Amino acid sequence: MQTFYLFGPLVVAVAALVYAFTKATWVSKQDPGTERMQKIGSWIASGAMAFLKRQYRVLAIFVLSVAVLLGVSNAGLKDSHVMIALSFVVGALCSALAGFFGMKVATKANTRTASAARHSLNSALQVAFSGGAVMGLTVVGLGLLGLGTLFIIYSKFFGTTYSATDPASPLNLTLNVLSGFSLGASSIALFARVGGGIYTKAADVGADLVGKVEAGIPEDHPLNPATIADNVGDNVGDVAGMGADLFESYVGAIVSSMILGMSWYFGIAEHQGFDGMNAIYLPMTVGLVGILASIVGTFFVKTREGGNPQAALNFGTVVAGVIMIVGTVAALAFMLPREGTIKAANVITGRTDEFHWWGLAVAVIGGLLCGMAIGFVTEYYTATHKKPVEGLVDSARTGPATAVIQGLALGMNSTTIPVLLICAAIILAYMTGGLFGVALSAVGMLSTTGIQLAVDAYGPIADNSGGIAEMAKLGREVRTRTDSLDAVGNTTAAIGKGFAIGSAALTAMAMTAAYITKIGESGHTLNLNASEPYVLVGLLIGCALPFRFSAMAMVAVGKAAQDMIQEVRRQFREIAELRPALIAAQKAEMEEREPNAEEQAIIAAADGKADYAHCVSIATAAAIKKMVVPGLLAVLIPLVVGILSLEMLGGLLIGCTISGVCMAIFQSNAGGAWDNSKKQVKEGGHKVYGDAYDGMHKATVTCDTVGDPLKDTSGPSLNILIKLVSVVAMIIAPILMWIHF
Amino acid sequence: MQTFYLFGPLVVAVAALVYAFTKATWVSKQDPGTERMQKIGSWIASGAMAFLKRQYRVLAIFVLSVAVLLGVSNAGLKDSHVMIALSFVVGALCSALAGFFGMKVATKANTRTASAARHSLNSALQVAFSGGAVMGLTVVGLGLLGLGTLFIIYSKFFGTTYSATDPASPLNLTLNVLSGFSLGASSIALFARVGGGIYTKAADVGADLVGKVEAGIPEDHPLNPATIADNVGDNVGDVAGMGADLFESYVGAIVSSMILGMSWYFGIAEHQGFDGMNAIYLPMTVGLVGILASIVGTFFVKTREGGNPQAALNFGTVVAGVIMIVGTVAALAFMLPREGTIKAANVITGRTDEFHWWGLAVAVIGGLLCGMAIGFVTEYYTATHKKPVEGLVDSARTGPATAVIQGLALGMNSTTIPVLLICAAIILAYMTGGLFGVALSAVGMLSTTGIQLAVDAYGPIADNSGGIAEMAKLGREVRTRTDSLDAVGNTTAAIGKGFAIGSAALTAMAMTAAYITKIGESGHTLNLNASEPYVLVGLLIGCALPFRFSAMAMVAVGKAAQDMIQEVRRQFREIAELRPALIAAQKAEMEEREPNAEEQAIIAAADGKADYAHCVSIATAAAIKKMVVPGLLAVLIPLVVGILSLEMLGGLLIGCTISGVCMAIFQSNAGGAWDNSKKQVKEGGHKVYGDAYDGMHKATVTCDTVGDPLKDTSGPSLNILIKLVSVVAMIIAPILMWIHF
Repeated sequence: MQTFYLFGPLVVAVAALVYAFTKATWVSKQDPGTERMQKIGSWIASGAMAFLKRQYRVLAIFVLSVAVLLGVSNAGLKDSHVMIALSFVVGALCSALAGFFGMKVATKANTRTASAARHSLNSALQVAFSGGAVMGLTVVGLGLLGLGTLFIIYSKFFGTTYSATDPASPLNLTLNVLSGFSLGASSIALFARVGGGIYTKAADVGADLVGKVEAGIPEDHPLNPATIADNVGDNVGDVAGMGADLFESYVGAIVSSMILGMSWYFGIAEHQGFDGMNAIYLPMTVGLVGILASIVGTFFVKTREGGNPQAALNFGTVVAGVIMIVGTVAALAFMLPREGTIKAANVITGRTDEFHWWGLAVAVIGGLLCGMAIGFVTEYYTATHKKPVEGLVDSARTGPATAVIQGLALGMNSTTIPVLLICAAIILAYMTGGLFGVALSAVGMLSTTGIQLAVDAYGPIADNSGGIAEMAKLGREVRTRTDSLDAVGNTTAAIGKGFAIGSAALTAMAMTAAYITKIGESGHTLNLNASEPYVLVGLLIGCALPFRFSAMAMVAVGKAAQDMIQEVRRQFREIAELRPALIAAQKAEMEEREPNAEEQAIIAAADGKADYAHCVSIATAAAIKKMVVPGLLAVLIPLVVGILSLEMLGGLLIGCTISGVCMAIFQSNAGGAWDNSKKQVKEGGHKVYGDAYDGMHKATVTCDTVGDPLKDTSGPSLNILIKLVSVVAMIIAPILMWIHF
Repeated sequence: MQTFYLFGPLVVAVAALVYAFTKATWVSKQDPGTERMQKIGSWIASGAMAFLKRQYRVLAIFVLSVAVLLGVSNAGLKDSHVMIALSFVVGALCSALAGFFGMKVATKANTRTASAARHSLNSALQVAFSGGAVMGLTVVGLGLLGLGTLFIIYSKFFGTTYSATDPASPLNLTLNVLSGFSLGASSIALFARVGGGIYTKAADVGADLVGKVEAGIPEDHPLNPATIADNVGDNVGDVAGMGADLFESYVGAIVSSMILGMSWYFGIAEHQGFDGMNAIYLPMTVGLVGILASIVGTFFVKTREGGNPQAALNFGTVVAGVIMIVGTVAALAFMLPREGTIKAANVITGRTDEFHWWGLAVAVIGGLLCGMAIGFVTEYYTATHKKPVEGLVDSARTGPATAVIQGLALGMNSTTIPVLLICAAIILAYMTGGLFGVALSAVGMLSTTGIQLAVDAYGPIADNSGGIAEMAKLGREVRTRTDSLDAVGNTTAAIGKGFAIGSAALTAMAMTAAYITKIGESGHTLNLNASEPYVLVGLLIGCALPFRFSAMAMVAVGKAAQDMIQEVRRQFREIAELRPALIAAQKAEMEEREPNAEEQAIIAAADGKADYAHCVSIATAAAIKKMVVPGLLAVLIPLVVGILSLEMLGGLLIGCTISGVCMAIFQSNAGGAWDNSKKQVKEGGHKVYGDAYDGMHKATVTCDTVGDPLKDTSGPSLNILIKLVSVVAMIIAPILMWIHF
């Protein structure tokens, strides 16, 4: 059986990748549409690649430097130094590869979705969802493949003998070097999510300010070099950024569960015919079941003409969920002794607890359901025509100030239920499975990431396809179809954001537990007594950290936008063909008419002359520059605090997680609700006309602008922050122990 | 000596009250100014009394009900039930009395400051500051008098014998029933700060919406029945609200320090010639020194014509601080054994620590300096012409959205340093004095509350005097003097807010420590291991609580404003004299001229016909109604969580404190900075003119409106929340122990 547990996940992971590859090939083969559509599509695609190129160049240096640092700083641990650096590099590579592949396909699926929308709603849905599925299955496939392969290598090298009292036992060493994989994933996530978040909003603001305000040309005009950067931003933030974020959660949850699994080792081994290693294999097996469930689920995403794409996506997710529940119960019943209880060491209380096999199944399923519930709550708070957004729209009648206040209150209010859901998942998992159970509930929540992320990445593809249909002047019927796909995309985006925050929180807690366990293994029980001032101070600093980090991200958007503005102005000045075309476009816009034949000729002559790729590269550079300080903050603070006191670091991790999850939900939901309040006002039906309507609309536009960096930059960045500080702590634990003991 | 420690604080407290009474009499005797000034003044004064009347009526019922509940629920503890109810009622009475007296004098000082400003700057400063000093000294005087008297009564009744192992030892019982005083203070603070905060902004919004927008009459027009309510709001929020807030912190810090002082009892008693009770007397003695320092400090607040009132106020505060430092060292050197170390039981670690006498002095002085430093940091982040507000003004060039984002970022950023200062104070105090040291650093921070609050309450008095000077059409020279006083008031308000938050945080932590100690006394050590899921869940729920509470407070403002609007409309409809006067005033306003003689006669005929008091009463009722749910939340959640698990409640207290302090600083400073950015734009000098200036000004006006409920309602409410949940936990600890053990 051991062979199966070792190689099973690899086989399924490869299957997921093959399936993703098939889907990608299928997407590529679809009709890319008219020449105009292909042109726009190629601009976006090459812009996205320019972003990745620039980003990966910096990342390569960063990753290699950290790898060397990791190797050197772990020099004291026998042979670990090379391996942990290797894990780190492989983790970074896998995440980067998933991002590259996912973006590549997403930018292809854009135009092809618009093209398919010329024929039928279902074929458009198929293309868009397939594009998303590639991202989803690549993330889980590469995650499990990377982890599984490294685990096999390390366990062959070190062996898997385990001793509860020796922190340098072979299994400890194996899992310790494996955790480098998680840090690698975090590095990419930091760049993709924080850098990408800054990038996407900087491009948005930059494009608007120079194009619309200064040059007086319409929004999304091809003459504006920043237009494509703006479109690229959607892919960067919502596809690659979200992908890297969930990749980090996925592998982080699995690795920390494997570490916590050690506490069940002897309890399982006591039973006749069972191997203690089953506890270590368990998280990867749950991942395996989740991938299978996700793949099957994708086959159930189908709709008819005039049907509701949301129902199709929901059906696929529910099917995956049901398979996941059945599969988990079956797998756990097989891997764990079903008779009698299983003893597990409790690193917190120092006692030995006893659990049943089904306890872990309850924990996994609890996590899965909790993730789904958080998604639905998020949707409730941010969707149009639901009570919260209705209230927000009402408050916009009296201007932007009241709407801003109402939105802030809405965001703050929306933290309560998700927090209580997370609390429920934690308590349930702890009661039925101890700390291992808590970590496994994070794995459970993330197990169906394959299809969850597919649904999520479907959103920006549908969104972009609508934009392309508009720019390429496709017919009204096509636009209706893409609109119907896009409307669903807003809902899935909200659900996805809630899911990402919830899973980040549970993952961070699992990693914190792994940090405590690692230190506990050395015989020094870490008592994080919150009333003990060092822990309390750690909690306080940790709690304040998300406030600082959010502020930095918000301010960075404004500053990066400045660099973008400079570059657009430079192109307007230096590219000869642009000036006459701009004047022509501006004249038509000022006179509120379509350009005449002569003007069209001038504009056409400049078509594609704007250097989109360079614009993207400049914005990327600015975004990456601006994320250095917050990034360093997230890495250095746990290091510095850890050197001061192990207890203070423990407090910091928990303080940062609890405050980070509240701040992330608050900001994401306030931003999402503001965005949708604008949409709802535009839809009309509020019995306001003329000036009153204009005022109300303008108020929601202001709110939407306020919410943009909150929901797309600072809010999601906190997912990364809370995981990054935890994974850094988990990685440096052996070094800190060497310092302190 | 015991007699001195018992009666000394009483004598000094009475001296403070006598001094306050003398100051009040002096203020009353000052020239109340012209007939017009007196009329306006009497409207505000009677409005303020209407507020208090309505509030105290509800409070009386509330206090009596809680007193009965407290008595019944403590029925099991011998004789405690009557006493704890008595403490509670006396605490509520003292706080209410301080609020009543302070408001009474502040509303008298308003007109008299304006009147004195007709003669000289210093005489105006003297009146305004004397008005503030009455509030400051009444708060500390009644606080110490109430606590001291009850302590004498209880210690005579129960005795002061102490046993470390018997939670029902006489000293335990004495201090347990004494803590009811703190809960009484919290009840009043809840009504005054949360209810008052909702009231002040509801009146502001209501007055503006019906008066300016609907009726088209100028702002602050006497025809508007809500105008006086708006003026009353300043006194309600900034005088009575702040007073009740600091009263709560003051007595909360002293009571919890006395409880934690028990851990030093035997360590001191071991030394020849020293009594263990000195540890219990110590917090009140520090309070005594602080009152003396504050009284002396007030004599140093003097300025010359053309001088800077800020420098005068600062000088008084610094003098008080220096006396406090010297006095603390002297008192502690006298009360504690100076030779050898003092043993103290550590309820957290279970070990016995050893400290020096000077350790506690360091803790007290650390707290004092920390409070001052937080005040100055707050000022830096919110003052005009400092870097943060300059940046905010800059961002307003591109409209309200960017300014809102920048302000949110500024508020979030501003949390870092105060949090680090609090961390430093905690660590320092813990290292030199253990948990008792931490609690004493809160007492130290609050020791000079007498003069701090005097400076703080001076602000709204100066503000109102400017308004009265304007309404009574006093000369330009007078207006310059009141402006110069008012400008300082903005700074002192910012400093005061920071100080209030910082002291609330330290007090809440001291009360949490008292909760843990109370449970620890029963032999059940409460280990708040933050990695233990029950504690973690408590932390999470606690962390989310301030988000919910803030949201509720923000929404409540909007809803209470609606009730106010209804009442103003009713008066306009039903009071016969108002309609013709309104039409006359509106006509002049629309034609942008002063009313002519005929119109003036019509308006004069309606003068004072508007029922200001009823308007105040309606707004008060609405505010009190809207604070019931958040208030109940703050009381019931610790109760429910405590019944679930003592550890979860401990986590909740800490989570709520750490997240509450960050959220309070964030909201207060964002609001303060937005307010001052508006002021700075109005001052001019930003090289923008015409439409661009209008846009920039309008952007800051929007921001100011957003910030109003944040800085005056939801932000300060969190001070109350974090203390209230802690004091509730401290009070119900014996009942919870009865349930759990």
